[in-house]
Amino acid sequence: MDKPLKYAVFGAGSWATAIVKMLCENLDEIGWYMRSVYTKEHLLREQHNPNYLSSVEFHLEQLKLSNDINEIATYADVLIFAIPSAFMHSELEKLTVDISNKIIVSAVKGIMPETGLLVGEHFHEAYNIPFDNIAVIAGPCHAEEVALERLSYLTISCSDQDKAKQIAKNLSSDYIKTKISDDIIGIEYAVMLKNIYAIAAGIAHGLGYGDNFQSVLMSNSIREMKRFIKKRHKMKRNINNSAYLGDLLVTGYSVFSRNRMFGNMIGKGYTVKSAQMEMSMVAEGYYATKSAHLLHEKNAKKAQIPIINAVYEILYENKDPKKVFKKLTEKLD
Amino acid sequence: MDKPLKYAVFGAGSWATAIVKMLCENLDEIGWYMRSVYTKEHLLREQHNPNYLSSVEFHLEQLKLSNDINEIATYADVLIFAIPSAFMHSELEKLTVDISNKIIVSAVKGIMPETGLLVGEHFHEAYNIPFDNIAVIAGPCHAEEVALERLSYLTISCSDQDKAKQIAKNLSSDYIKTKISDDIIGIEYAVMLKNIYAIAAGIAHGLGYGDNFQSVLMSNSIREMKRFIKKRHKMKRNINNSAYLGDLLVTGYSVFSRNRMFGNMIGKGYTVKSAQMEMSMVAEGYYATKSAHLLHEKNAKKAQIPIINAVYEILYENKDPKKVFKKLTEKLD
Repeated sequence: MDKPLKYAVFGAGSWATAIVKMLCENLDEIGWYMRSVYTKEHLLREQHNPNYLSSVEFHLEQLKLSNDINEIATYADVLIFAIPSAFMHSELEKLTVDISNKIIVSAVKGIMPETGLLVGEHFHEAYNIPFDNIAVIAGPCHAEEVALERLSYLTISCSDQDKAKQIAKNLSSDYIKTKISDDIIGIEYAVMLKNIYAIAAGIAHGLGYGDNFQSVLMSNSIREMKRFIKKRHKMKRNINNSAYLGDLLVTGYSVFSRNRMFGNMIGKGYTVKSAQMEMSMVAEGYYATKSAHLLHEKNAKKAQIPIINAVYEILYENKDPKKVFKKLTEKLD
Repeated sequence: MDKPLKYAVFGAGSWATAIVKMLCENLDEIGWYMRSVYTKEHLLREQHNPNYLSSVEFHLEQLKLSNDINEIATYADVLIFAIPSAFMHSELEKLTVDISNKIIVSAVKGIMPETGLLVGEHFHEAYNIPFDNIAVIAGPCHAEEVALERLSYLTISCSDQDKAKQIAKNLSSDYIKTKISDDIIGIEYAVMLKNIYAIAAGIAHGLGYGDNFQSVLMSNSIREMKRFIKKRHKMKRNINNSAYLGDLLVTGYSVFSRNRMFGNMIGKGYTVKSAQMEMSMVAEGYYATKSAHLLHEKNAKKAQIPIINAVYEILYENKDPKKVFKKLTEKLD
């Protein structure tokens, strides 16, 4: 029998912490890299992450903690990255060991802003990782509910279905059900785009639009998402599967969504800067909006993406949310 | 120029009241039939419906009110029915005048329980109305938000697209946007089925499932709805349009939804009878569940409808919600 693969998680935000918790249900030891010395020391002393999901108690004998990204990258065979896309580049700069024979799993919810590449594409190009060794974890899954052990479903996507199954198995438990998929590109885009639509939902709420409008916005969002993804990577996919529609809904409708909260503040009249300062967490959708806009600009034949365009105009062109949304309502149906 | 068609609304619930309000934005006079003498007298005295959307003030000179269904049916050319499906049969029994040359618009959210027919089908069979003269109004649209004049979108469906356009025009205003469709059967089923899924969402909430699960439930619901409708009437339709997915979402996620509220009580341990007694409004989904179950039983080749089946088992076979949902979670993905 093959030696079991060693897993490690990179990052110490809420999603990284939730993934470590899921793996703890199945594995004897998990590598866990985090930048912050304070977080690591707090974990060692108090058995929980001081900043995120602090109700989750870990058993230290299951964790191999380190502030050295190279130590953890060397230790593990399966490297799960759950670092906000905006910080991926600076974290990966510290990586000096060879990871070309590792399995890379992206739990990053966005695009690398520096390159405009999906995280999977980035690892393929920069580290020579074959696509068969790249996987993606997608929700719908708020980390906060994993902490509460509320039933959640994950989709693990990899072109090598055996690897997808293996990773899925190690994340599954009483409260986590998993399915596998081979649409790694489509799911990476969906994960990124849904945060933009959650910002749109938040803006609408902040502007005083009601539930009737929100449902129209979500109905238009999933159709727009389908058009956008099709332009990037055409294949047969059911956009209503949980990894696409489910993830859009949990982000667009949930009180846990920081992207929706960010949008809500913008709709209520905060500037982008002041809204960002008020929030202690990064709203991934802010960066995703720019990335999506840039990708769209590059397309020779453009998909209709009025919602992404509206959010872009508000966040990056300083346009009045009220006026932009008034115009947007004419384009929805 | 043709003489403009006269419109009338049948029913005095919240949805009927909202439709009268929409028409008042465009028409000089609207016929309005209601069963209750008290409601009519209150309207004449206080200019608002005593029981539903009572914040909406009407101008009496625009309303032709009557407790006589035949008087209003004779008066109008376009008859809009917004009576709960459970009461349609007993109301229509009073109808003695010939309506075969009228345009019938269904704003009923369900199936005629006595016949298992869609409201449109019922009018076609029982009153010889040609299908070209039958239309359907669909949301996503909570009546309560119409009262608040919050932007809402309606879909008007009729195989005669000119009639659909005409009706849509008379419902449109600053706060109501409309589109037209020719999928009258599919939309009638969607309007009915979404109430079952809203009950399911309520049950899940009552049982303590969280946002992550709700989004998976809705993602599975729209796929199940697509399968169900396809078995009844196969045509090219985008199930993610507002009339299908949007309506599902506004019903499944909104605090205004009486079906979700009803389900929530069931999930929390109320019996069906006690939940119905606690609520002053009819949860259409209760009847829709039985109708959908019966239709499904009649199909030779059955679609997979685990969510409808689960709700049926809880509401009509007295099965334990907790156990039924535990089993259901294994079938979702």
